[in-house]
Amino acid sequence: MSAAMALVVQKYGGTSVGSLERIRAVARRVSDTVAEGHRVAVVVSAMAGETDQLVELAREIGGDPPPAREYDALVATGEQKSIALLSMALQRIGQPACSLTGPQIALRTDAVHTRARIRSIDAARIHKVLDGGAVAVIAGFQGSDEQGSITTLGRGGSDTSAVAVAAALQADVCEILTDVPGVFTADPNLVAAARKLDRISYEEMIEMASLGAKVLQIRSVKFAMDYDLPLHVRSSFEPGEGTWVTREEDIMERLVVSGVTYNRNEAKIRVRGVRDEPGVAARLFAPLSEAGIVVDMIVQNLGGDGLTDMTFTVPKTDYRTALALAEQTASQIAEGGVEGDEEIAKVSIVGLGMKDHAGVATKMFELLGAEGINIQMISTSEIKISVVIEEKYTELAVRTLHAAFVEDGAAAPAVE
Amino acid sequence: MSAAMALVVQKYGGTSVGSLERIRAVARRVSDTVAEGHRVAVVVSAMAGETDQLVELAREIGGDPPPAREYDALVATGEQKSIALLSMALQRIGQPACSLTGPQIALRTDAVHTRARIRSIDAARIHKVLDGGAVAVIAGFQGSDEQGSITTLGRGGSDTSAVAVAAALQADVCEILTDVPGVFTADPNLVAAARKLDRISYEEMIEMASLGAKVLQIRSVKFAMDYDLPLHVRSSFEPGEGTWVTREEDIMERLVVSGVTYNRNEAKIRVRGVRDEPGVAARLFAPLSEAGIVVDMIVQNLGGDGLTDMTFTVPKTDYRTALALAEQTASQIAEGGVEGDEEIAKVSIVGLGMKDHAGVATKMFELLGAEGINIQMISTSEIKISVVIEEKYTELAVRTLHAAFVEDGAAAPAVE
Repeated sequence: MSAAMALVVQKYGGTSVGSLERIRAVARRVSDTVAEGHRVAVVVSAMAGETDQLVELAREIGGDPPPAREYDALVATGEQKSIALLSMALQRIGQPACSLTGPQIALRTDAVHTRARIRSIDAARIHKVLDGGAVAVIAGFQGSDEQGSITTLGRGGSDTSAVAVAAALQADVCEILTDVPGVFTADPNLVAAARKLDRISYEEMIEMASLGAKVLQIRSVKFAMDYDLPLHVRSSFEPGEGTWVTREEDIMERLVVSGVTYNRNEAKIRVRGVRDEPGVAARLFAPLSEAGIVVDMIVQNLGGDGLTDMTFTVPKTDYRTALALAEQTASQIAEGGVEGDEEIAKVSIVGLGMKDHAGVATKMFELLGAEGINIQMISTSEIKISVVIEEKYTELAVRTLHAAFVEDGAAAPAVE
Repeated sequence: MSAAMALVVQKYGGTSVGSLERIRAVARRVSDTVAEGHRVAVVVSAMAGETDQLVELAREIGGDPPPAREYDALVATGEQKSIALLSMALQRIGQPACSLTGPQIALRTDAVHTRARIRSIDAARIHKVLDGGAVAVIAGFQGSDEQGSITTLGRGGSDTSAVAVAAALQADVCEILTDVPGVFTADPNLVAAARKLDRISYEEMIEMASLGAKVLQIRSVKFAMDYDLPLHVRSSFEPGEGTWVTREEDIMERLVVSGVTYNRNEAKIRVRGVRDEPGVAARLFAPLSEAGIVVDMIVQNLGGDGLTDMTFTVPKTDYRTALALAEQTASQIAEGGVEGDEEIAKVSIVGLGMKDHAGVATKMFELLGAEGINIQMISTSEIKISVVIEEKYTELAVRTLHAAFVEDGAAAPAVE
């Protein structure tokens, strides 16, 4: 990619443009990429802290939540500010640049304010800037609906903007420049031996993102997968290759386990003695979804007595509300009581290679059991296994699984 | 106006929306106006201090001057922020409101960034909001050109936006809500006896604005005059009528002198012994206008020797440049030298009644002479007389003229 001339979309997050000095550094980086012979469109977040400040203002004057349409109009100023400043910094060092807001590239979304979905982009407007020899500096996170009202894509929406812009431009790559050097096999703060992955598949990345790895917004990865667009996650501060997120077929070495992730932001709720009748699950979960609470794992244990236990997890921020709702419903559908537990963690292993290897789950349970860690819930997909354990064992579990599956290849069961 | 239902455009300046508390006060004021039965569109400036901060950022990263297109994109965020916050504050107190940026109302301008001129406005977009029972909260100072690039109208541009919006809507009145209660016969900080005018003509207001009274932007008054739109300058903090700016015909009492103004921001340049040949004036002033320097007063004194003295004034900020340019030209067209003086003030009296009264100028000169104030230059129009004097006499001159012409009607010469 670096040898031939390419159309590159680069996305810089809020930390990367967090001060004028950092904006100048980004300008040099962008200008270097142009000097390598590439055409470059840049998608930028608001300066770190800016969005939080605006959100605070909105709550103070508009209530909580503030009116959604006006909230979007307000917070969208954050990205407009950073694209103007970055364009100035580029021009200052002799690199022509042109800032473009979401509405200016006709980044059309639905009308769901604060978490709008992208429908289309005017690629011609961006190409016109690139054809003129300038860098297009595009505001992430924002667009406008059919009425022309400003909309925003929700937290992390700049990743999605970048991928959507890259897809619309039919770019060769979408680079996500961030404060870490790439995607790691585990959180390096927890596991000293964690290493950067050279390549990872879209599917694995989606699992890792949804399981707690914060490097990429899950929607943006799905978007990239749909458009078959290679993502390149790399450091905005240091040179060097990061992690490529690509199609499964483009990955030579299919690791059994590509990464070990954890999530301590969920809580568990258990409803005991639910009568085993049609429709009880719906009755239990309908009030939660009406309240906008996203239920993650669900486990049902059927007893011999026609009663079952239902256990599920919700975000910790929704725990109190969810518990109250569950108690209300339980009084109608269950014989037993409702229990909650906030002291849990979800630990997961993710890897394409699991498709080809049997016994990975067994091995995982054995490893945890050997450390005296009790497994409370289990959930699996083709390429990941998640377990819920006591929160205090999080580090031990992650390190144990990383050592066995990632550091020591021998722990992988033999190929079938 | 207040009895019948009307379409009212209210403009609030940066001081009026300078804090969340003040924005809440503006919301109450707007809501009260709606409660009186009016349809209301509001045009808002950026919060006081916000624009200065953005300009400083632009200079730091973009140089001085920063790139104009990006400068406009940056500073336009100031008004976008204040319209969103005011709309939220309105909704919070139960008043439906909808924020609209310059681009959203298709406030189309030419492409002269940082001082663009308005071409058209999509009145239908605003009417749609009003028809829906909401207050339209419109960003002042900003628009977009034919390419869709964001433009700004220059300092004080929000006044112009407000008048243009009012004209486009065919509003009954454009209220300019500001931190003073109206237009005064003189600067109240200088003249204790200065009083608020109930009415003033467009022509007088234009003269007063261009002569240093800061209450209204001159372009906005010209705009209002062109569209025959009544302006009402009033306090945003206190209730009560302010000053109406209207057609001459609507003013019952034609004061000989409506106001005494002063301007200490100009400097004087004198070129001695200019050869009295065709085209010398053009040769003297062409380099100045090419440098973007606006020459205000020009006085030429023809001597008996075929040589003349040319004296003119320029803004103090352009004084050094103008002096250097004048010296270059003088070496080719003049026998004498070039002198400059920054210690001057221009003091003016303005009044429709001058049209009907002779001897006003004579009376003015006599009054100043009696105080020992020497007159260096004179310039007159149908409704104003300006003199340049030594700067240190500014207060004395303003007070003397105000006492004689405004406080003591007897000082006015008898009607012809």
